[in-house]
Amino acid sequence: MNASLLRSVVYIAALCGLYLATAMLIPAMVDLYYGHQDWAVFATSAAMVGGVSLMAAMATRGPPPNFNRRVGFLLVNVLWAVFSLTAAIPLYFSAADLTFSQALFEGVSAVTTTGSTVMVGLDDMAPGILIWRSLLQWLGGIGIVALGLFVLPFLRVGGMSFFKMESSDTSDKPFARIATFTRAFIAIYVGITLACVVAYDFSGMNHFDAINHALTTVATGGFSTHDASFGYFQNASTLWIATFFMTLCSLPFSILIVFVVRGRFDALRDPQIFVFVGYLSAFALAAAIYNHLRNGAEIGDAITHSFFNFASILSTTGYASQDYLLWGNFAVAAAFFATFMGGCSGSTAGGIKAYRFVILFNIIGTGLKKLIYPNAIYSVRYGKQTVDAETQRAVFLFFSVYIFIWVVGTMAMAMLGYDFATSTSAVITALSNVGPGVGPLIGPSGNFSTMGDLELNLLSFMMLLGRLEVLTMMVLFVPLFWRS
Amino acid sequence: MNASLLRSVVYIAALCGLYLATAMLIPAMVDLYYGHQDWAVFATSAAMVGGVSLMAAMATRGPPPNFNRRVGFLLVNVLWAVFSLTAAIPLYFSAADLTFSQALFEGVSAVTTTGSTVMVGLDDMAPGILIWRSLLQWLGGIGIVALGLFVLPFLRVGGMSFFKMESSDTSDKPFARIATFTRAFIAIYVGITLACVVAYDFSGMNHFDAINHALTTVATGGFSTHDASFGYFQNASTLWIATFFMTLCSLPFSILIVFVVRGRFDALRDPQIFVFVGYLSAFALAAAIYNHLRNGAEIGDAITHSFFNFASILSTTGYASQDYLLWGNFAVAAAFFATFMGGCSGSTAGGIKAYRFVILFNIIGTGLKKLIYPNAIYSVRYGKQTVDAETQRAVFLFFSVYIFIWVVGTMAMAMLGYDFATSTSAVITALSNVGPGVGPLIGPSGNFSTMGDLELNLLSFMMLLGRLEVLTMMVLFVPLFWRS
Repeated sequence: MNASLLRSVVYIAALCGLYLATAMLIPAMVDLYYGHQDWAVFATSAAMVGGVSLMAAMATRGPPPNFNRRVGFLLVNVLWAVFSLTAAIPLYFSAADLTFSQALFEGVSAVTTTGSTVMVGLDDMAPGILIWRSLLQWLGGIGIVALGLFVLPFLRVGGMSFFKMESSDTSDKPFARIATFTRAFIAIYVGITLACVVAYDFSGMNHFDAINHALTTVATGGFSTHDASFGYFQNASTLWIATFFMTLCSLPFSILIVFVVRGRFDALRDPQIFVFVGYLSAFALAAAIYNHLRNGAEIGDAITHSFFNFASILSTTGYASQDYLLWGNFAVAAAFFATFMGGCSGSTAGGIKAYRFVILFNIIGTGLKKLIYPNAIYSVRYGKQTVDAETQRAVFLFFSVYIFIWVVGTMAMAMLGYDFATSTSAVITALSNVGPGVGPLIGPSGNFSTMGDLELNLLSFMMLLGRLEVLTMMVLFVPLFWRS
Repeated sequence: MNASLLRSVVYIAALCGLYLATAMLIPAMVDLYYGHQDWAVFATSAAMVGGVSLMAAMATRGPPPNFNRRVGFLLVNVLWAVFSLTAAIPLYFSAADLTFSQALFEGVSAVTTTGSTVMVGLDDMAPGILIWRSLLQWLGGIGIVALGLFVLPFLRVGGMSFFKMESSDTSDKPFARIATFTRAFIAIYVGITLACVVAYDFSGMNHFDAINHALTTVATGGFSTHDASFGYFQNASTLWIATFFMTLCSLPFSILIVFVVRGRFDALRDPQIFVFVGYLSAFALAAAIYNHLRNGAEIGDAITHSFFNFASILSTTGYASQDYLLWGNFAVAAAFFATFMGGCSGSTAGGIKAYRFVILFNIIGTGLKKLIYPNAIYSVRYGKQTVDAETQRAVFLFFSVYIFIWVVGTMAMAMLGYDFATSTSAVITALSNVGPGVGPLIGPSGNFSTMGDLELNLLSFMMLLGRLEVLTMMVLFVPLFWRS
């Protein structure tokens, strides 16, 4: 860790701070428009963060650092830490009266697009805070797609290098290609968001709610403007619109980008899409039929709510339209395991992710065949492609580290006094960036407002760990990383 | 699957039946001695099973089959199925009044050395049934060590081939070596059992209890002659004796064998022993301190019970001296995760096992270092040995299949109506061959007597699946296995 590197890291972090300070002007204007005193908090925070960032940026300007993998890891971690802290600042100073750990938890939950909240009384909350939380999730969504598309493949984290975009069919310069793809992605992301706002508007939401929920739907974030989440909108068309957009934004953005940039839709035959849509449908249908048979729920209604809530969990959004835990024990178990699973690579969704399940099940199938004929050659497949040994190892590394972190985190939560359902599910809902857990405290009809600072800090850490695909942050804890 | 193979499989299964028919004479004599009518059940069962087995054996005698891996897999599965069914026969016809699924569950729980029971009123149960249950566990213990030492390494299941015994330091013929090792193992197993009987006797158990508990301690089985399990013996010396023998029998028998056959004790430096004893001590101490601080339990007492109960879970025995779930939420979470973990390779313990954790953590450590320096060469180590890629793949295959079976099984139990704690823990306690789960129904102060036949059959299947290290049975479900 030399001085020139430190300078560059601070410089890039300061740029991030500048962007966020600018973003704070939006809630400031919203509060000013609605006549809420918090406009001053956002304006002051913007001036403060903007000023500090500007000074830091000017002091550390200079040639770019020698970019290598260690710098990459460090930068990603620092950027998300700055992003989280900056997000928390106006929340801490706002009228919402949060402790610092609560504000940080809310900020981390926002930028990691988790959607767990410590805030109650959202229905009467100042509009500035609401739009700030939604905006943070939307920006976090951009951050995470960029990470998944451009950074993690380069860092070879969790098998993401398997999805290097279009590496073979072009001789463009890589940076020019990244710029093209980035522009296409932003256009698509903004386009989907606008479409979502319009759809929500038409389904009967007021315009403020439509904008907020569109921002947090497209980011698969899950923050709402109502304590009852989508329970407030008891309207099938609203629920199906949300289901559609949550599912869409759990698909690989790379495919939409390839379509927009090159006019090709053949990438849609990605096996992870079939697997994701497959397990989403399986969970939703099973829970709907269960709810219908066990509780006599009207079947159309049961299907609507089941698809909405399981799309919400599996896309790692975290909205709820009903307390699905009350449907019965099967719904609890299904919601719990769905919390581990997640969406597709290069999307705003978290979790273990569908492409890893494709590879895992192929490894299992191949492994069983090799037990029968150890000398035969069976290769692990991802659709028509062969999965190389390095990707297999990377997927395994991710999977086992993910499980172990869940185990250790759960034991810590239990040590802090939480019951079995709460401690097992609080950690995984944070790690997978979903939002609600199981059990009454943090289930779909609960929230994190009663938790102490220690456990909130633990869960904030888990959210960041999960958002950075675990390994990106874990390498910082290896002593080798810090040796020069 | 040809006729000659089928003949050989039936022949070997018939031999197994003959042995068990002979074993039934022991409970018959015990019941006769104590004057209980069930002596006739055991005598009749012995005659029936013995007669059928003898006829089957005579009808199928002939030259041994061409031994290959598929035959090996088939044989192991058939043997354990016959073992389970035969074990259940006298239980079904006895005065205990069990349904067939209950008797089969009890039989499978016995031969897999799990220790979950559907029987209540053990304190007043006929002595023949009690000794039969204990004897089955003891025999099951022999079966599982033989499987781990001689069969699974040959079948290359779950990385066990890493522990091929002494393959490099001898030029003996393999079968002569196996015979020597088998004799040594039986001598050690019988010796430890006798030592355990004597120790229990001296600690104040009556002789009948001492024999029964020695049989089920050495097999890390967990059946007791009292509904209160070791809660009946509120005596620190008895608990520490049990703790010692449960731990001893979770260590690799190969090491004791090498000591007896070759007079060498250096194999004790096996990393899995350090890891197993390490996590056992960590769990036990943490829970003891927690119990002391939270509930004001006297510290010596807390340590005794904590070591006893965590040795019981981690050795996959399943005795309980107290309802440790009442110690608080941390104890529940710790007991739950301990249920996955298990003992060492080539022991009577089940679970994921310590050597796999050694390899898993080495894979994780190496993987993190490779993320930092992808071109450096880091090899995965097991102590001083390098772990080859095949063993790594085998460990991963085992680990992921284990987790997936737990997930699917839990969802099935939840579908059958069980709450979150019961369904998550019933499946893993069966799969790891431990015994009790968490939650009031099947926790250390509960049992499986209220469960329906469907769920008992599911859990019986899970116990066998776990006992055969999962993959040995899973290959039967691959269509390729049955193709000629």
